[in-house]
Amino acid sequence: IAKEVAKLLEMKAQLGGDEGKHKFVLKTPKGTRDYSPKQMAIRERVFNAIITCFKRHGAEVIDTPVFELKETLTGKYGEDSKLIYDLKDQGGELLSLRYDLTVPFARYLAMNKITNIKRYHIAKVYRRDNPAMTRGRYREFYQCDFDIAGQFDPMIPDAECLKIVHEILSDLQLGDFLIKVNDRRILDGMFAVCGVPDSKFRTICSSVDKLDKMPWEEVRSEMVGEKGLSPEAADHIGEYVQLHGGLDLIERLLQDPKLSQNKLAKEGLGDMKLLFEYLTLFGITGKISFDLSLARGLDYYTGVIFEAVLLQQENDHVEEPVSVGSVAGGGRYDGLVGMFDPKGRKVPCVGVSIGIERIFSILEQRVEASEEKIRTTETQVLVASAQKKLLEERLKLISELWDAGIKAEVLYKKNPKLLNQLQYCEDTGIPLVAIVGEQELKDGVVKLRVVATREEV
Amino acid sequence: IAKEVAKLLEMKAQLGGDEGKHKFVLKTPKGTRDYSPKQMAIRERVFNAIITCFKRHGAEVIDTPVFELKETLTGKYGEDSKLIYDLKDQGGELLSLRYDLTVPFARYLAMNKITNIKRYHIAKVYRRDNPAMTRGRYREFYQCDFDIAGQFDPMIPDAECLKIVHEILSDLQLGDFLIKVNDRRILDGMFAVCGVPDSKFRTICSSVDKLDKMPWEEVRSEMVGEKGLSPEAADHIGEYVQLHGGLDLIERLLQDPKLSQNKLAKEGLGDMKLLFEYLTLFGITGKISFDLSLARGLDYYTGVIFEAVLLQQENDHVEEPVSVGSVAGGGRYDGLVGMFDPKGRKVPCVGVSIGIERIFSILEQRVEASEEKIRTTETQVLVASAQKKLLEERLKLISELWDAGIKAEVLYKKNPKLLNQLQYCEDTGIPLVAIVGEQELKDGVVKLRVVATREEV
Repeated sequence: IAKEVAKLLEMKAQLGGDEGKHKFVLKTPKGTRDYSPKQMAIRERVFNAIITCFKRHGAEVIDTPVFELKETLTGKYGEDSKLIYDLKDQGGELLSLRYDLTVPFARYLAMNKITNIKRYHIAKVYRRDNPAMTRGRYREFYQCDFDIAGQFDPMIPDAECLKIVHEILSDLQLGDFLIKVNDRRILDGMFAVCGVPDSKFRTICSSVDKLDKMPWEEVRSEMVGEKGLSPEAADHIGEYVQLHGGLDLIERLLQDPKLSQNKLAKEGLGDMKLLFEYLTLFGITGKISFDLSLARGLDYYTGVIFEAVLLQQENDHVEEPVSVGSVAGGGRYDGLVGMFDPKGRKVPCVGVSIGIERIFSILEQRVEASEEKIRTTETQVLVASAQKKLLEERLKLISELWDAGIKAEVLYKKNPKLLNQLQYCEDTGIPLVAIVGEQELKDGVVKLRVVATREEV
Repeated sequence: IAKEVAKLLEMKAQLGGDEGKHKFVLKTPKGTRDYSPKQMAIRERVFNAIITCFKRHGAEVIDTPVFELKETLTGKYGEDSKLIYDLKDQGGELLSLRYDLTVPFARYLAMNKITNIKRYHIAKVYRRDNPAMTRGRYREFYQCDFDIAGQFDPMIPDAECLKIVHEILSDLQLGDFLIKVNDRRILDGMFAVCGVPDSKFRTICSSVDKLDKMPWEEVRSEMVGEKGLSPEAADHIGEYVQLHGGLDLIERLLQDPKLSQNKLAKEGLGDMKLLFEYLTLFGITGKISFDLSLARGLDYYTGVIFEAVLLQQENDHVEEPVSVGSVAGGGRYDGLVGMFDPKGRKVPCVGVSIGIERIFSILEQRVEASEEKIRTTETQVLVASAQKKLLEERLKLISELWDAGIKAEVLYKKNPKLLNQLQYCEDTGIPLVAIVGEQELKDGVVKLRVVATREEV
């Protein structure tokens, strides 16, 4: 129904107003939305939980412009580059809206010759994608990124990123979740031992990436049919990508006669083992799954990759929990900063991005369903009067309250009715009313009333 | 020096890296900048002060997309429209980056049929202006807007906007300031009685607007020379625009034989008197000046207008304090929402915009000068070890601290030296170190050290 109504409203808006006088369309651009005060209240709750976590882990914060030089984004996103918003050439530099926060971060590090930083960045990014707004997919959306840059001992920062995802998803109480982990080196090693030619690694990787949305049979036929992989190689891959587990699986693959002979795979599996040891110390392996089907689309990952999904468990009869979509993802990208450095100097990086829009959608729906009343202001007291001609007294009193740091409001009317003033408190959740009247003025006092209990002092 | 260095660095960047291998320019787009963690720390301080004030006055918060349909911005900014950033036509809608937060707010009200709201909105806006970054003038910059929309008794919301400017500028301790106030109706009435033809009101108004940067003689010659105003009319205007004062001046002009005969001027002066009465109740008239030379550029104002300037008083020998630039401005715009409503229904609005970039510049320079050390993280404790092979113990301990909500860091090294760990605390301002060693492990304790005093327990 909501979808149909939106469609009709859009149609109506496109047809123009009743008078046909104003012909423009009264809407936000496709794939974007306004945030109402109520939505902002939910948004701020989520941001608070996330920022609190990032700060708990000692992160600094930076900000970068909403647009970058077009060439800064060129060659970083593979096929997805077509989704970048370009600005019109109005003379001067060619600019594009940022597509994520990772490339601007790498540009920032290279430009300022920073080799060591732990920072977070929360900002909107832009993708000319097909929006699916009811499921929280927009063209303008927030990313909440936490990254650790620097040359460190292996897997310690990587483990911290996973700890952060675990803390945030637990804190937000979104229900059960699972964090899938893999390593680009294990994938590449696996492709090699399965007989995938080097030149097809990236494109076969992007087929594997579709396994969370497609059954294996379809992915296989894409590999063989569209991408020209041999059926034997595909079947071989098919055996591996079904595997998921924990330390036991890592140990088993380290003994795998083929995989253990591949240098990349061996490195990746060794690091994966170390990662799981650290995650055991953090006590979070219960929600982590080493999953050989996880590939992640972006070109720039070089090591560990991970993705967190929420598990749907509403229906108890379902045997295995069903994934309802990714809410966080990230990985290691050791080569990206070097692409910007004039001398190609590398700065190893690992980071995580929280997919906040899907989380908003879930929490919005939950608030809607629960009929929980969300306050959109923090006002503590309404300054009111029972009689007429007391505007001056109200303004004097509220000025005193403001100067004392008290959050206070007054109705912008000369002679409001007491009932309307009390109703305003009910509507907006203001807990107290400070009432001035003839008697109070004579006595030099103010009457304070608790809205909920009607108690007065 | 800073300017010259920036120029040279830009030139160097344009010449490309040393190897000429990467030919792209490593920079942010013209007129934009990154915010380093230190700058973000200052920025967050300022935002906190402003948001606290907006919430103290009971404001809700909204957000809108960074771009709007191009036609939404069309015809709202007069001559300044040429400074709007357009997006490239990549198929689909024609879009532009927002130029301010006021027009998107009016679009939001009309689209959602909201006739009554008090909201703030803090976000970046975009103007293809000539940047003067050392003076805090950028192409991408923040606006912090507070607006009251709705049909209310006259001048109560207007007075609250001025109270808010007063509170914020006092709170930020930027030095002495002055809030100039005028009314578009008084200006228009003044133009009428001075003999300015109706068709020249807006263009003569924009000449008057230059009086804060140009002497009267130049403005006069622009009026007469470029804009074809009669010398008599110009001289007549010249007499009025020199006037500034308080209630006394309002009373005098209400008696002015010509002005008092003009309907618009009389209305404006009547409201100005009421405004000053409310400002007296708020106790802030000491920093308010009714100033007939204040015009403000934007087309959409319809009533009260105001602008806050900081006064430079470093040199005691200067007789009158010199204005160093506007840090806040706003006014009443009763017609803007109606431009978006299909039936032209009006929603009266008044609002204020805090010019945050200039405030950042001032505070940044002040921090730089004072050599105050600004912390960029909030970490409370570093988990450290004195001996080797204790990484596992450190990770177990820090995990416990994180889970208890304590802000903690650990160096990402297997065997860091204690001295390096202590040095890290000194550098980043972490006040405590939690040390695990063989002895502590045996005793089942952790040694806690205060970095500043070297005290240990």
